[in-house]
Amino acid sequence: MSSSSIPQHISRQFDNDLENIRTRVLGMGGLVEQQLATALRALTEANPELGEKVISNEVKVNTLEVTIDEECTRILARRQPAAGDLRLVMAVAKTITDLERIGDESEKIAKMAIDLAGKQGPRSYYIGINAMGNHVRRMVNGALDAFARMDSKAALEVAKGEPESDDQYIALLRQLITYMMEDPRSIGSSLDAIWVARAMERIGDHARNICENVIYFVEGKDVRHISIEEMEREVNPPS
Amino acid sequence: MSSSSIPQHISRQFDNDLENIRTRVLGMGGLVEQQLATALRALTEANPELGEKVISNEVKVNTLEVTIDEECTRILARRQPAAGDLRLVMAVAKTITDLERIGDESEKIAKMAIDLAGKQGPRSYYIGINAMGNHVRRMVNGALDAFARMDSKAALEVAKGEPESDDQYIALLRQLITYMMEDPRSIGSSLDAIWVARAMERIGDHARNICENVIYFVEGKDVRHISIEEMEREVNPPS
Repeated sequence: MSSSSIPQHISRQFDNDLENIRTRVLGMGGLVEQQLATALRALTEANPELGEKVISNEVKVNTLEVTIDEECTRILARRQPAAGDLRLVMAVAKTITDLERIGDESEKIAKMAIDLAGKQGPRSYYIGINAMGNHVRRMVNGALDAFARMDSKAALEVAKGEPESDDQYIALLRQLITYMMEDPRSIGSSLDAIWVARAMERIGDHARNICENVIYFVEGKDVRHISIEEMEREVNPPS
Repeated sequence: MSSSSIPQHISRQFDNDLENIRTRVLGMGGLVEQQLATALRALTEANPELGEKVISNEVKVNTLEVTIDEECTRILARRQPAAGDLRLVMAVAKTITDLERIGDESEKIAKMAIDLAGKQGPRSYYIGINAMGNHVRRMVNGALDAFARMDSKAALEVAKGEPESDDQYIALLRQLITYMMEDPRSIGSSLDAIWVARAMERIGDHARNICENVIYFVEGKDVRHISIEEMEREVNPPS
């Protein structure tokens, strides 16, 4: 194992097991990132074929979640890990759930892209959608990078970006409501765009969850349901 | 322990630990059910005080999730459970995440109820909202009941109800879009109603997840991402 924060074991097989699930999570993460990128391209390029590609790949994401989860349970049963190892397995088990949900939301975006490609309606909000899409893609990428290096400081920095995606979401919503009021015929396509924005907001949430899992593993503290300021104190305690 | 499907242990303390987390999950479930019921009442009675009550109780739900999760990790580390016991701990760890999310969605409904109480707009869609609300409340109640008795057949019956909440959601959405088109001034309040419907749809999803956790524990099979027909074959194999 490369990271110095991950303990060494006498049993090489156990090390292999742990390294194996970490690698598989990163593989699943790569696939999910690709699903999100393709879904966003399907949307901005109004390309239904790309949307179909995302939908057909969704089963791979689901299969990875189930198999990695089984592997975690197998390690718990056979190796009976303690302390940091146990936290690693738990962090992995939680992270794959978040990744699967990001895959789910990407699939929803892909479905909306297919739906929107066949509809009339203003396209100017695509700028806002695109900006928000790029922001959540960076969050997911940063969260996976922090996971790969098990770096709690990097995870904290990524988690700090979440309020920005909430702000973008509110601004986009306001813009879309204005469109709907100005032109009721655009209600159908504007609603689809709102779903997309909401899906992206949720992806931002899951990226934050992954960061919390990294902090939980490294610091041994559960930082869910606390503010960014409190999280900051856990990761960078005042000296 | 009352249920015959739950193995007996030589160590009474271990039995106590397992019984304790099960009881706490049911306590958390009771609180979450109450949060959902209060949020729906806040909405249908246009009562912002009830909405505020839900919001102020949300922290209790979050605290329960964190403490039960810590208890699960402690049991994994100290007792090193195997087979059915390990599945029970994993089912509990997953179920509390779903319960916390149901709590989250209930809080969203409460916020919308507060928002809607101050707004003009048609109220006739409340019939549809109410019907859907009652349906998901029954699903959550049924899922927790199946969990309490660790009854996979009962869990399957509850999971079968999920497509109905999807259908109700689509019908409600159609109705609300019609309102928005007829009267663009109702767009704001109709959008809020759409968020409520979507929150209820998600609650139905989480109730189904809890049922899947029960089936996973009892049958030892991961039934996520499979159809109801396949799930049926796992729980009631053809003889």
